Amino acid sequence: MTETTILSSAARTPSREEIEQAFREAYEIGRAATITGKVADYIPELAKANPRAFGIAMLDGEGNRLAFGDTDTRFSIQSVCKVIILAVSLKTKGFRETFSHVMMEPSGDAFNSILKLDTRSNLPFNPLINAGAIQLVSTLADEFSFEDLMGFARELCMDEGICLDQAVYHSEFESGNRNRAIAYLLKSKGVLQGDPEKTVDLYFKLCSLSVTARSLASLGLVISNDGVNPLTGEHLIDPEHVRTIKSLMFTCGLYDFSGRFGVMVGVPGKSGVGGGLMCAARGPMGIGLYGPALDEFGNSVAGVKAMEHLSRRLNLHVFDY
Amino acid sequence: MTETTILSSAARTPSREEIEQAFREAYEIGRAATITGKVADYIPELAKANPRAFGIAMLDGEGNRLAFGDTDTRFSIQSVCKVIILAVSLKTKGFRETFSHVMMEPSGDAFNSILKLDTRSNLPFNPLINAGAIQLVSTLADEFSFEDLMGFARELCMDEGICLDQAVYHSEFESGNRNRAIAYLLKSKGVLQGDPEKTVDLYFKLCSLSVTARSLASLGLVISNDGVNPLTGEHLIDPEHVRTIKSLMFTCGLYDFSGRFGVMVGVPGKSGVGGGLMCAARGPMGIGLYGPALDEFGNSVAGVKAMEHLSRRLNLHVFDY
Amino acid sequence: MTETTILSSAARTPSREEIEQAFREAYEIGRAATITGKVADYIPELAKANPRAFGIAMLDGEGNRLAFGDTDTRFSIQSVCKVIILAVSLKTKGFRETFSHVMMEPSGDAFNSILKLDTRSNLPFNPLINAGAIQLVSTLADEFSFEDLMGFARELCMDEGICLDQAVYHSEFESGNRNRAIAYLLKSKGVLQGDPEKTVDLYFKLCSLSVTARSLASLGLVISNDGVNPLTGEHLIDPEHVRTIKSLMFTCGLYDFSGRFGVMVGVPGKSGVGGGLMCAARGPMGIGLYGPALDEFGNSVAGVKAMEHLSRRLNLHVFDY
Amino acid sequence: MTETTILSSAARTPSREEIEQAFREAYEIGRAATITGKVADYIPELAKANPRAFGIAMLDGEGNRLAFGDTDTRFSIQSVCKVIILAVSLKTKGFRETFSHVMMEPSGDAFNSILKLDTRSNLPFNPLINAGAIQLVSTLADEFSFEDLMGFARELCMDEGICLDQAVYHSEFESGNRNRAIAYLLKSKGVLQGDPEKTVDLYFKLCSLSVTARSLASLGLVISNDGVNPLTGEHLIDPEHVRTIKSLMFTCGLYDFSGRFGVMVGVPGKSGVGGGLMCAARGPMGIGLYGPALDEFGNSVAGVKAMEHLSRRLNLHVFDY
Repeated sequence: MTETTILSSAARTPSREEIEQAFREAYEIGRAATITGKVADYIPELAKANPRAFGIAMLDGEGNRLAFGDTDTRFSIQSVCKVIILAVSLKTKGFRETFSHVMMEPSGDAFNSILKLDTRSNLPFNPLINAGAIQLVSTLADEFSFEDLMGFARELCMDEGICLDQAVYHSEFESGNRNRAIAYLLKSKGVLQGDPEKTVDLYFKLCSLSVTARSLASLGLVISNDGVNPLTGEHLIDPEHVRTIKSLMFTCGLYDFSGRFGVMVGVPGKSGVGGGLMCAARGPMGIGLYGPALDEFGNSVAGVKAMEHLSRRLNLHVFDY
Repeated sequence: MTETTILSSAARTPSREEIEQAFREAYEIGRAATITGKVADYIPELAKANPRAFGIAMLDGEGNRLAFGDTDTRFSIQSVCKVIILAVSLKTKGFRETFSHVMMEPSGDAFNSILKLDTRSNLPFNPLINAGAIQLVSTLADEFSFEDLMGFARELCMDEGICLDQAVYHSEFESGNRNRAIAYLLKSKGVLQGDPEKTVDLYFKLCSLSVTARSLASLGLVISNDGVNPLTGEHLIDPEHVRTIKSLMFTCGLYDFSGRFGVMVGVPGKSGVGGGLMCAARGPMGIGLYGPALDEFGNSVAGVKAMEHLSRRLNLHVFDY
Repeated sequence: MTETTILSSAARTPSREEIEQAFREAYEIGRAATITGKVADYIPELAKANPRAFGIAMLDGEGNRLAFGDTDTRFSIQSVCKVIILAVSLKTKGFRETFSHVMMEPSGDAFNSILKLDTRSNLPFNPLINAGAIQLVSTLADEFSFEDLMGFARELCMDEGICLDQAVYHSEFESGNRNRAIAYLLKSKGVLQGDPEKTVDLYFKLCSLSVTARSLASLGLVISNDGVNPLTGEHLIDPEHVRTIKSLMFTCGLYDFSGRFGVMVGVPGKSGVGGGLMCAARGPMGIGLYGPALDEFGNSVAGVKAMEHLSRRLNLHVFDY
Repeated sequence: MTETTILSSAARTPSREEIEQAFREAYEIGRAATITGKVADYIPELAKANPRAFGIAMLDGEGNRLAFGDTDTRFSIQSVCKVIILAVSLKTKGFRETFSHVMMEPSGDAFNSILKLDTRSNLPFNPLINAGAIQLVSTLADEFSFEDLMGFARELCMDEGICLDQAVYHSEFESGNRNRAIAYLLKSKGVLQGDPEKTVDLYFKLCSLSVTARSLASLGLVISNDGVNPLTGEHLIDPEHVRTIKSLMFTCGLYDFSGRFGVMVGVPGKSGVGGGLMCAARGPMGIGLYGPALDEFGNSVAGVKAMEHLSRRLNLHVFDY
């Protein structure tokens, strides 16, 4: 933690120039950090990403945009899709039913851990780890086709270009045995709905949606703005559900690093092993980051470093009341 | 989750009458909930508490106070002292050193779990579980006497009446073998500083400080107000450290219920098995609750229910931007 | 432990009458114990067994036979097939290669635990728990058809009547999601060979072989007699491999009850949730038991009680030197 | 596993010359293996041992003795004392009461694991891991002084020279925090009897008894000979209890290597991190080995290698019926 001065919580709103300057600095800091990470290799297709790539996109409630670096590069959404899955579940099943299928506690284990499933509870710990997302997908698979869900992702991300990355999907499908194990274990406990193979197939497709840093900024903005697309006025997610999503992103959004991200950045975020990081800051402001070089926890090193800087410079920490 | 209407996040500030009314309702709801909990019995002295007792105290930045029910009853602070221990560590050792002794991740395990210590990491998961607090106490024991630390607790809680509850302390000392086990395990890993017996003795004393709901409201106010006592203007904790404390209270403050409290209440809180619950809400506003009937996770059932109501009625959820 | 007198280890060999009498007593004791157990219900087809059924069969090296009770009832071999799988692996892959796929340590966990797979080692703990047997099946599936393996089971059990119980197989197939989870987890670790679905399918078929107490007595005799069928003189398993099999049956053959069975009975045994228990006693002597009412560990209550009696009366404990 | 020829189980008894030759070879094999191990360093005093030291002693029922290498060097008995503790408990409390304090299952975890204590059962898994031995010591501490127990050790080991190694004891006492953690955890569960500190103090003293390879050979002989000292005719342990001890040594005697030792050697053994290994072979025959260079599991590398050779050459495997 660099002990630099921060704006006091009573500080005036930063000017547009100050905001742009902060993002430019964050971009430089993140870009320099890329060399300290490693591209995911557990899915062959992900290993092809350029480890030095980095981009930040910002979109605020008035439609202002900023973009530095690789903000148009398409990459697979991976775990960031868990937020969309949760939003769909809350929208169609409601709060009560959603949380009859999954708990809402941070797990303290790695993103793909099977450990907790077998020791403490039959329900997955939360919807933002693999087990929880797979569980929710199983409850949605009857009602929604992949195309339906992709359509909702396009709306939330304001990006009609989102489509299935076939190469990643095939790679996921080939390598997804741990997720199949999770699905069959949940099935054996009587928790998973429907067919495990069909469930993980749909889950793999959702993880293989191709997005950009810009799409994630848009998604972050909608979440930041109580579920309303401020550019169109469209209500996409219920405000109560958005609050739930942001809370879970805060406590569980960055795998085993969630606690530290909460302390150091203090903005609800969700990362994916494709290198994406989506943040919903006050303002409203959505921030999308793309940097495929990952830290030991599976988060974009550049993304995390850039967010640390932005949080301090722009006073984004939610606990700077 | 009762699906009642909430104030929109753009809502006007509630009037004093509305605030008072919300607290009165919360008191009634909490009081009714006491029958669903059970007083802690793992320490004989705690088992003597009146399970139907309940009180809420509020203190805001302008010195306004509210108090309903048993707000002058003294009870032992228990785990709420972990926040004070963390504050002292941050103040005297700084951020970096503090988090070289303890991590900052939610653990997903029960408050007194030994499991994680032996499987994933030698460092305790966070400062708000027993292992983490004991570890930090071990690093403070050379520099600070119990009296020093009690003095700091009195300042933070604006309560000169805080003293050692001898009966609880003796009860802790007699029954504290699990905490001794944790201390010796940390020592065997080369993590704990100094003498395990001396460490747990000091820890037991800190857990046995007798507070009231009012004291916890004052503590919550200081934390809510960036570390400054608004009544005296005294700077008690550095604002950066306060942010860290609030973040950790949010992710780890209510044991295995932290994630759900974050979703349902959305206010940094810390509970203790003595029945106390201390919350630092925006405003600034400190809320102290006392209800010794506990839920299965060790949190005051009345306290949690009352906070759920207050959060909705007064728009306190931190993710209602 | 009933503290009855036992034959001293220097005792003369019991007469045929004494042996017959001991088995008759063991049958009565076992039969009385059936009421304390519960038929397995995790596979619907198993739940149909008669909980009061019980039979013991004995076959010794001179071809002497004893049979009490339900010794001709067919039931599914279940986990007893793990011994046959291990024998085939040792025979065709040899000791070194077999134990490059699986360890040889007791696990201390339940028969179907996934816990250990995810925490300590990528290899299953031993070949007599589900994970280990599935792993070995995966290494045999290319070379051997189900018919080949059934043929070997018929030879070892001297029972041409052994065939696939289609109802049990379908029940296994429908309910076997935990085993699928194990197979996919092993695959995801790069340990399982070939296709998980094909592997568990073959494993389910092997578990569904229908045997009798007599068949298990024959299997026990071959193992007891250094791998030679004493009635035909045929060498079915290498003596060194038999020693390995007996050692593993001793340390790991009765799930979480293996240690206690070793103390109380002291004869290498292997149980199955179908109610079978196969023992290889000195003599040579094979003992096959069938009692579908199970204890909390998944072992036949009647089988265990009967073996305790036989061990004491006939001095079968391997550590009565 | 070297695939050398072994004596068939029907083989004639080896001559005295053959036995001596086998021990000489075992000594050479063990001595050569010392370079592959590492002396224990978790207790400073143990780290002072000569890593190249190695000795084997044999004593049979007719009083024949063999001794090669460092068979008169004194070293601390460490975990081998667990066998003596178990023998005393069985003798004075009986089978039933002993196993009301401790289970009899292999744990599948490291010798000093705390994991299992906190997840599955409140009772230690077996008397031959630290938790189990500490638990039994707690039940004996009221009735027996250290001197009483040392006296019993002297009798069983036929060695009046056994005494407390003060340096090791102090080293144990200083470094024994993990064992203290285990004791306090057992106390917190209401399992441990009496005072944890007093219990571990007595346990540390018992671990610090200084023995030789010869003493362990004598102990092995008594166990091998149904509890009778064949040289004096004195009955030291009840034959039933000896059987229990041998069974537990077989399933749990070499930590995480017990299963493999059972397969490869097939003789009840108990190792200690001081480098001792005590084996009770058929014959009767006691074998004591000393080689302080340890493998990753905490067993003497030389001791294990030498026993593998002896088992094959002299047909000692208990499952060579």
